[in-house]
Amino acid sequence: MCESNVYLVDPGQEDEEGELFLEAVDELLPEEDGSWRVTSIFGEQKIVTGRIRSMHLVDHRIIFERSA
Amino acid sequence: MCESNVYLVDPGQEDEEGELFLEAVDELLPEEDGSWRVTSIFGEQKIVTGRIRSMHLVDHRIIFERSA
Repeated sequence: MCESNVYLVDPGQEDEEGELFLEAVDELLPEEDGSWRVTSIFGEQKIVTGRIRSMHLVDHRIIFERSA
Repeated sequence: MCESNVYLVDPGQEDEEGELFLEAVDELLPEEDGSWRVTSIFGEQKIVTGRIRSMHLVDHRIIFERSA
């Protein structure tokens, strides 16, 4: 399976060692208000309020930066 | 390998049957100007000028909508 884990870092944080927000994410959809709806392969849905900083799919890592 | 293919759709296009833009994408990084730098597992890099409409990782599909 090719899902990714979503991590959150703080605004301005230089490294990408973030807090795990949701595991095994299959779908990411932008919402009207600029947040993102993320859904895991298990059907769990969460809203991320932040911007995507980077995606590393082969490493299964998607990094969001929290809104300031 | 868990890379995705990146497809482009037109602004306002309702379906997600887009044109293949880059295959086997590993990394996606936002640029300062709002575009995205996408890099394949083969090291090919391209710039997408548009916004992410949806990501379906298990299906290996990332859909961008071209800038109007």
